[in-house]
Amino acid sequence: MNKTYTLSILVKNTSGVLTRISGLFARRGYNISSLSVGETENEELSRITIGLTGDEYVLDQIKKQLSKLIDVVKIKQLKSADAVYRELMLVKVRADIKKRAGIIEICTIFGTRIVDISKTTVTIEMSGKPEKNAAFLSLIDEFGILELVRTGLTGINRGEVTILD
Amino acid sequence: MNKTYTLSILVKNTSGVLTRISGLFARRGYNISSLSVGETENEELSRITIGLTGDEYVLDQIKKQLSKLIDVVKIKQLKSADAVYRELMLVKVRADIKKRAGIIEICTIFGTRIVDISKTTVTIEMSGKPEKNAAFLSLIDEFGILELVRTGLTGINRGEVTILD
Repeated sequence: MNKTYTLSILVKNTSGVLTRISGLFARRGYNISSLSVGETENEELSRITIGLTGDEYVLDQIKKQLSKLIDVVKIKQLKSADAVYRELMLVKVRADIKKRAGIIEICTIFGTRIVDISKTTVTIEMSGKPEKNAAFLSLIDEFGILELVRTGLTGINRGEVTILD
Repeated sequence: MNKTYTLSILVKNTSGVLTRISGLFARRGYNISSLSVGETENEELSRITIGLTGDEYVLDQIKKQLSKLIDVVKIKQLKSADAVYRELMLVKVRADIKKRAGIIEICTIFGTRIVDISKTTVTIEMSGKPEKNAAFLSLIDEFGILELVRTGLTGINRGEVTILD
């Protein structure tokens, strides 16, 4: 049965590490729905968070293959019970002067920031849980979304546990 | 001369598109410092934001090769004068009860959210401009960063302009 998974992978900063990792998923026909890579507290390491939907058996096989890659320091599957997930979105909405107040109202309720405004548009920075982001998008969609950029999901374990534990 | 660039790429959701794109950079020895992929307002398309440091001539060549890929709908180089950039970070900081107040103080000044707390740690969600995130990290680093996860930079054009213009 297909389910949604989040993998957190600590890797060495080598040229091509991302190609090797995403290639493993592609060769199995596994579709990555979101991926984010950023620097970590250690400048020699980066951390990749991958959101994907698929078959658990195939995922286990991919995890085994990932752990054999020389650039991969650690892999951890984040589980919703003991991890925090967030995503950042930049949303450009159609908004003339008449509609602006309605948009600002929704933004205030969701605790988002307006990062740019023009005569016909408003651009919003929204960071939050996936469910909250989805709720925001479905409301703001009524005004007409012109452009939407998302970072993909990122996540971290709750409490004292880190990826190295 | 090496400079920092941000590329925004609109792609079709095909298995392997990320491998093909990151592979182009890897083959040229170009090191991607951050990358984020997320869904867009069109469910058939994803958008990739890549942050990189390198040579402009090589970047121009990569852009030409990217535009030849069948999965690539549009490429746009974002320029800081007419774009908004943001990054999301989750930061786990060492914090016993005595240090907690000092951390909360910094978080309030920066407008960040505390998303998890344990007897010995505090986990913070920070979303902002790269410079602001860097300033926050250098302050909070004094408490001891246990774990840092970043989405990588994402960006959008200011005003009415979209990636399709």
